[in-house]
Amino acid sequence: MGFWKSLFSSSDAPPAPQAMQMEDDPSKAAGDRPSPRIFFSTEREIDLYELEELCDAVGWSRRPLRKVKKAIQHSFLVVSMWEQHGSHRRLIGFSRATSDHAFNATIWDVVVHPEFQSKGLGKALMKQVIKKLRSEDISNITLFADPQVVDFYRNLGFMSDPEGIKGMFWYPD
Amino acid sequence: MGFWKSLFSSSDAPPAPQAMQMEDDPSKAAGDRPSPRIFFSTEREIDLYELEELCDAVGWSRRPLRKVKKAIQHSFLVVSMWEQHGSHRRLIGFSRATSDHAFNATIWDVVVHPEFQSKGLGKALMKQVIKKLRSEDISNITLFADPQVVDFYRNLGFMSDPEGIKGMFWYPD
Repeated sequence: MGFWKSLFSSSDAPPAPQAMQMEDDPSKAAGDRPSPRIFFSTEREIDLYELEELCDAVGWSRRPLRKVKKAIQHSFLVVSMWEQHGSHRRLIGFSRATSDHAFNATIWDVVVHPEFQSKGLGKALMKQVIKKLRSEDISNITLFADPQVVDFYRNLGFMSDPEGIKGMFWYPD
Repeated sequence: MGFWKSLFSSSDAPPAPQAMQMEDDPSKAAGDRPSPRIFFSTEREIDLYELEELCDAVGWSRRPLRKVKKAIQHSFLVVSMWEQHGSHRRLIGFSRATSDHAFNATIWDVVVHPEFQSKGLGKALMKQVIKKLRSEDISNITLFADPQVVDFYRNLGFMSDPEGIKGMFWYPD
């Protein structure tokens, strides 16, 4: 269920997502124009070392690649974000969601490479995730936000503690 | 991956979960003793009308059974709670969890029939869910709690907003 989207030359400000260009074949799109481009993909065939490098760049604790692989396999949705220069692709963002395929989804592991932050790319990545989940008829899209990104998600239309509903984490007694 | 546990005569106070009796065959267990017993199961072959009746009893909005079936199929874990009188079983509790099978799980649709509430059965049900998730090496067990059940989950070892992490829900702009 992969899809690719050509977004914009990386030197430009990102357009509103509705202005995104659809590209079935990113290499063709990149071939037409020499400037670097940003693409999204829902393919799960991600180089785990490249993903680890991305997560290292934002300071996340390392996790066993075997478990990361399993988590990707069993996620309902994976959306990755790539910068493409000619035939070279670089992983610059990632997100995934678990789901019951019917009512609820929970978004995990949202990451954008520091060099690509503050350009609207995190927002564009999340809009892809939301759009895809909505297209799959998921009505309840949830996540757990660290304090420093609560406003980022609020700007995307997420509400914290709606009607007093609390996110809770289990810890051993 | 079904498992059954014989808990106790329904007229008794529930024992601590570590005192639960294991029963591979609940009908055999029930045959041995005439008093009603409580069992847990992870089988997914649940009568959807019986589940709907249980959810009706606690006042939940009805959901399309086709979607409920899909959600159960795609949940990582389903734990149901049954009262058994002789050969008759009655569904008295339910819970399920989505997961990436590696790091995270999120518990949804926790319900105990009103006639069986305030007897420690909700706690016993949740302990089964937690135990099963822990046995599958899931380290991050999460849920979204309505205000009136936050204390119930806190007593089970769940923390709300740990380190300022906020549960968030997406709503269209």
